[in-house]
Amino acid sequence: MKFELLGTDGAARRGQLTTTHGVVQTPVFMPVGTQATVKALTPTDLESAGAEIILGNTYHLLLRPGPDVVRELGGLHRFMGWSGAILTDSGGFQVFSLAKTRTISDAGVEFRAPLDGVTRFLSPESVVDIQRALGSDISMPLDECLAYPATREATARSLARTLHWAARAREAHGARTDDQALFGIVQGGAYDDLRAEAVERTVALDFEGYAIGGMAVGEPKPTMLDLTATVAAALPRDRPRYLMGVGKPEDLVEGVARGVDMFDCVLPTRNARNGQAFTSTGPVTIKQARWTRDATPLDPACSCYTCRTFSRAYLRHLFVSEELLAYRLLTLHNVRFYLCLMAAMRASIEARAFAAFRRRFFSDYVSSDDRVC
Amino acid sequence: MKFELLGTDGAARRGQLTTTHGVVQTPVFMPVGTQATVKALTPTDLESAGAEIILGNTYHLLLRPGPDVVRELGGLHRFMGWSGAILTDSGGFQVFSLAKTRTISDAGVEFRAPLDGVTRFLSPESVVDIQRALGSDISMPLDECLAYPATREATARSLARTLHWAARAREAHGARTDDQALFGIVQGGAYDDLRAEAVERTVALDFEGYAIGGMAVGEPKPTMLDLTATVAAALPRDRPRYLMGVGKPEDLVEGVARGVDMFDCVLPTRNARNGQAFTSTGPVTIKQARWTRDATPLDPACSCYTCRTFSRAYLRHLFVSEELLAYRLLTLHNVRFYLCLMAAMRASIEARAFAAFRRRFFSDYVSSDDRVC
Repeated sequence: MKFELLGTDGAARRGQLTTTHGVVQTPVFMPVGTQATVKALTPTDLESAGAEIILGNTYHLLLRPGPDVVRELGGLHRFMGWSGAILTDSGGFQVFSLAKTRTISDAGVEFRAPLDGVTRFLSPESVVDIQRALGSDISMPLDECLAYPATREATARSLARTLHWAARAREAHGARTDDQALFGIVQGGAYDDLRAEAVERTVALDFEGYAIGGMAVGEPKPTMLDLTATVAAALPRDRPRYLMGVGKPEDLVEGVARGVDMFDCVLPTRNARNGQAFTSTGPVTIKQARWTRDATPLDPACSCYTCRTFSRAYLRHLFVSEELLAYRLLTLHNVRFYLCLMAAMRASIEARAFAAFRRRFFSDYVSSDDRVC
Repeated sequence: MKFELLGTDGAARRGQLTTTHGVVQTPVFMPVGTQATVKALTPTDLESAGAEIILGNTYHLLLRPGPDVVRELGGLHRFMGWSGAILTDSGGFQVFSLAKTRTISDAGVEFRAPLDGVTRFLSPESVVDIQRALGSDISMPLDECLAYPATREATARSLARTLHWAARAREAHGARTDDQALFGIVQGGAYDDLRAEAVERTVALDFEGYAIGGMAVGEPKPTMLDLTATVAAALPRDRPRYLMGVGKPEDLVEGVARGVDMFDCVLPTRNARNGQAFTSTGPVTIKQARWTRDATPLDPACSCYTCRTFSRAYLRHLFVSEELLAYRLLTLHNVRFYLCLMAAMRASIEARAFAAFRRRFFSDYVSSDDRVC
């Protein structure tokens, strides 16, 4: 994997990530494909929406169909028919939030999966192995995910474990001659000094990119943004920076403003299935009766298939009728909206006009119908 | 609407139906789009599967979003973004099978809809009006749908009512100068003489096509096929014949062998959502563990996106994971399979080789992997 920083505008960065599965323009949003599918979309839909990289979930794929099945079928790309890049998470976040019972030790995490009740064990080494079997372009090490708020003592203890695991993952993953990259994850909770320590000791392990973890876990938005700015500024300039699990459209703009290169979040896909569409003039709740006879598209500024073809009235009808097509069409639009927003940000950084873009976005997103893309 | 009989091979017919929304090659299968959507598919999917005409359900569209909304939004074609032909049923079948309570009189049917509990009344005239508002290319008159078995007396009484309603529908629909066709529906249950009377008196009303109704309602398969053959043979040669609600792939072949031109059925779409795929070598139950590591496509003889892109193992994974994409990909394949089967039948009739095709289909569908299309 190769990362090139093409330009900057303030803290905002315009870059390019070259993987064995294509080039990814940054800042980038990565749609989440939990179970080897970005819910309701085909690989062709993702391409037409402009996706260059998507996420896969190690935890879910471990449980089903299992890394051995995926490897036997040619790896995750071939299994799901996606020829672009894939980043797999470590499964840590899901183990901490989804598993019924879990026991953490320095060795790793033992957990009982809700799906089959079977007890499994994840170590820093096994998480590397699983992601090798999946064959993703970018892999993540096992880390401990702490809830917010947490005491300084608990956060420091947790950080020590994450750093210990990071070193073991680095070791297990081996030299950087492989075609699969490994990122480091910066933890440290809401404590500036712990975050600073996390940056220093994680960077010392020399990863190919750095994620800012433990965000969007319940902390106030200003805290998240301040921590992001501090951590991003401390990270090496020549490596991509990935803000995990973030966020809303406005969070992406604020993240880019603070020097973040990569984002992922279930919001555009999950909210689509709940009937919320993101548009250039703000979110739309499609089930509202006000759209019953509305012949206009979801977002006149959008060029996706949904907006080119259907009215809000039709989308509302599909959604209230619980038709499968509703989830698909809204997902397609939301993913396209997120990817277009990133494209617009990239263009504004290239033009060294990011500050103006950011002002305009916040004005448009709540108050007008100006074109985002 | 214009129907041209292009050729025959035994009782099998090759024809062409010209509507204001394109030309339809017959024999044809019409995918069912109950609520203004063929479940899980876009109009683009339907086109790529080769669909030229689809079905809309008057009953469902009456309840939601209502014919006034559809008319205001430019009619059913525009509302759902489908530029091909549409046939709407009369809603009679759904009223008789879905409504909680219903009262039938010669005037029409009063029913309480399960959706909103509101009492509504359908008359032969209102059913014509609703379909005019929907703007379908082919409309159907209100008929009484009898369960099987029914006594001769009950069947005769019911037939008399259907014929009375047919005459009123014909009157309400007016002269055949309109761009919306009206078909007659031949009832008469499982009684040959009542079917003969139904044909004679329905044809006397001079409809633009004739449906064989009251089939696939529980009668033995041989009874259905014999009645179809008898009714089809008695219908005018220059009008299309539509066997309503039928059926499995083998039923389509047997229907064509008996002179049927048009079919509709929820099987390819509904069974897809239940995990059953139709293939050239017979049905496949995708959730079976035997497909867990199967790298082959659903049907190597099929050229649909699903078969071109994904393995049975992946489709199984999606289905057992209850992923939305499973329903979409299986639906896309099943619809394509049905439409290809019809295309193959049309080609065999043109080549005057339908008998050989029919023998081969029955041999292949259970025993080999020969190409259907």
